[in-house]
Amino acid sequence: MIKTDILIIGAGPTGLFTVFEAGLLKLKTHLIDALPQPGGQCSEIYPKKPIYDIPAFPEIFAGDLVNNLMEQIKPFSPGFTLGERAETIEKLEDDTFVVTTNKGTQHNAPVVAIAGGLGSFEPRKPPIPNISDFEDRGVAYFIKDPEVYRDKRVVIAGGGDSALDWAIYLADVAAEVALVHRRNEFRGALDSVERLSELAKLGKVELITNAEVVGLRGEGDLEQVVIRHNDTARGEELKPVDNFIPLFGLSPKLGPMANWGLEIEKNAIKVDNSYDYQTNIPGIYAIGDVNTYKGKLKLILSGFHEAAIMCQSAYQRINPNKKYVLKYTTVGGVQGFDGTKKEAKREVVQSIG
Amino acid sequence: MIKTDILIIGAGPTGLFTVFEAGLLKLKTHLIDALPQPGGQCSEIYPKKPIYDIPAFPEIFAGDLVNNLMEQIKPFSPGFTLGERAETIEKLEDDTFVVTTNKGTQHNAPVVAIAGGLGSFEPRKPPIPNISDFEDRGVAYFIKDPEVYRDKRVVIAGGGDSALDWAIYLADVAAEVALVHRRNEFRGALDSVERLSELAKLGKVELITNAEVVGLRGEGDLEQVVIRHNDTARGEELKPVDNFIPLFGLSPKLGPMANWGLEIEKNAIKVDNSYDYQTNIPGIYAIGDVNTYKGKLKLILSGFHEAAIMCQSAYQRINPNKKYVLKYTTVGGVQGFDGTKKEAKREVVQSIG
Ligand SMILES: Cc1cc2nc3c(=O)[nH]c(=O)nc-3n(C[C@H](O)[C@H](O)[C@H](O)COP(=O)(O)OP(=O)(O)OC[C@H]3O[C@@H](n4cnc5c(N)ncnc54)[C@H](O)[C@@H]3O)c2cc1C
Ligand SMILES: Cc1cc2nc3c(=O)[nH]c(=O)nc-3n(C[C@H](O)[C@H](O)[C@H](O)COP(=O)(O)OP(=O)(O)OC[C@H]3O[C@@H](n4cnc5c(N)ncnc54)[C@H](O)[C@@H]3O)c2cc1C
Repeated sequence: MIKTDILIIGAGPTGLFTVFEAGLLKLKTHLIDALPQPGGQCSEIYPKKPIYDIPAFPEIFAGDLVNNLMEQIKPFSPGFTLGERAETIEKLEDDTFVVTTNKGTQHNAPVVAIAGGLGSFEPRKPPIPNISDFEDRGVAYFIKDPEVYRDKRVVIAGGGDSALDWAIYLADVAAEVALVHRRNEFRGALDSVERLSELAKLGKVELITNAEVVGLRGEGDLEQVVIRHNDTARGEELKPVDNFIPLFGLSPKLGPMANWGLEIEKNAIKVDNSYDYQTNIPGIYAIGDVNTYKGKLKLILSGFHEAAIMCQSAYQRINPNKKYVLKYTTVGGVQGFDGTKKEAKREVVQSIG
Repeated sequence: MIKTDILIIGAGPTGLFTVFEAGLLKLKTHLIDALPQPGGQCSEIYPKKPIYDIPAFPEIFAGDLVNNLMEQIKPFSPGFTLGERAETIEKLEDDTFVVTTNKGTQHNAPVVAIAGGLGSFEPRKPPIPNISDFEDRGVAYFIKDPEVYRDKRVVIAGGGDSALDWAIYLADVAAEVALVHRRNEFRGALDSVERLSELAKLGKVELITNAEVVGLRGEGDLEQVVIRHNDTARGEELKPVDNFIPLFGLSPKLGPMANWGLEIEKNAIKVDNSYDYQTNIPGIYAIGDVNTYKGKLKLILSGFHEAAIMCQSAYQRINPNKKYVLKYTTVGGVQGFDGTKKEAKREVVQSIG
């Protein structure tokens, strides 16, 4: 059982900054995210795009925002359970919560901060009837560790950024890479499209366009994919493979949290914005894109404020008899749990003459 | 009469970021500040100190935060009335407001955003009975333009950072610089203290320590200061001068705004944080350090969120019949009033092979 002070569900920008605000209050944190990497929408959907409304950054790439946040929270050594979806929550007699993931990992904390954004990102799966039989037996919807595909025969399906980027990346890793796409137009960053085009000419990536993977075959593990060409004259083709990776994007689903007894409105969790962003269940807060209240803006800068306010309330729940006096970081510095300390240079008091 | 959409009182970090959020909504802004430069507490009190809790900046000097905000808001060309204190507010029949400064400058807008921080910074004046007779006739509490002191005989009083820094700066500008301080210990950045010590040895700054300026003399303009030494044996000294600049720090005072009919609590302006940070007077909002509500944190990051929310409400007040649909800056870009345009690189849709 993983134990912490504030269990954060969702490692998007809001969840990450919560680690920092909690750390200033000497509260430990642990994050759960369904995605294999931290950063939420910023990392998953638009890491290489600029954001213009992060205060004091005239422009910052979404991926750099996440990197900066990771750097900022480093002193507070948060724990991570990545690639797992928080599935159930249970309240114990001591008023703490146990959150269990789809893989059975259990977490225990007196405060839960849901920073789940638009929900957990679930892959859009192609409508192949027996696809679930091959999950983890050759079929995957994310690439967590590209080394898994070393010297394998891989078929990727999709026509967007992820499909392009991974086809390019795996061209140097896998034994064979084929990219199957319904159309022959690809949508992605200009340099990715150009690079793929080169690799196709060099024969390092096989492009199978105007076609779809419609079936999977194998005894136990995946052995073949069935490719159907739009050009009905060409019909269906059987291709021997080790791995099939459909990359049709991710769609967020509020998912399991919708059944936790929380008040839901507009597919988001209702909170008390007149005070501390707490939900209808005391001890469970909801911050960032996942919450809703009158006037809510789904902006990153709002998640930061909500995290700061929420941590103060969590502090009171965890330390009911202590009074917290806000100290500016400039004045008090930052004392990491890892032993590091940042602080402003002191002024000197010195006689002259 | 200066006209704008949102008149912002206070050019601290909160006021500055309001320009940006308003600009995204195509609303024009104008800022009034009692200080001669933008940045509020960050510029006036601790420009060279690091802040650690600005989201996505593991560390940033307060002065750099202000510079970044100035750069970020540049496309929206805000107007500035600096070095003037907003003194009175009046509501016109058309439901707009007129704000007049202590120097008589008038501003008219349908929305007023008070981002006045701890109030307007007022200099701490030394208790010299006739000092006000010499204000603007040789006595000043701020240095707006150092060139005013070129080839003049200047006496500065004080023992902190401002007194040190300006004595050092004016050593190269004025004909004579004397620094009078009650003790012989100075409190400031190490390099300032060392530099001052050198200049004293070189005879470029005269240090008069364990002493105080207790009187001012002159027919019309200032002609002499009376310096009293703590060592009573030395008694009082008359020193011929052109300028006397007491730099004993600034203390913020909520000041005139306390008499505008706004609901005041804990020396701050009460607002509706369950919605839009509006005060009890419709059309007047209060954001950043100047406001108060249950759970309020006087943090820079909270001012940013409050500014964003407040601008949405201002938009509705100004455009009662339009519906605003939030567009991410990443998707919609930033269209400056100065004709500039920032936007993310578009994805390409391209056929391959
Ligand atoms: C293309 C695009 C452009 C944008 N541009 C801007 C912009 O310019 N400015 C701006 O302010 N905002 C912008 N946004 C919105 C911004 O990205 C979001 O406001 C921000 O990501 C919200 O952060 P968050 O941490 O609250 O949630 P998210 O970033 O959504 O992160 C939530 C995380 O929670 C995880 N999660 C959810 N449920 C579970 C569960 N049950 N178990 C485990 N994990 C779970 C998800 O996997 C996800 O990683 C943009 C968004 C997009 C898509
Ligand atoms: C030493 C120190 C360290 C700090 N460290 C941190 C930190 O680490 N993190 C953090 O988040 N915060 C910190 N703060 C607090 C932070 O600086 C404030 O929260 C922030 O400056 C508030 O911004 P603001 O724009 O709301 O107000 P301010 O910065 O106070 O600006 C308000 C402006 O309004 C002007 N004004 C007021 N009334 C009038 C009037 N009637 N007419 C004209 N002008 C007027 C004032 O002159 C002033 O310039 C620190 C503060 C200090 C002093």
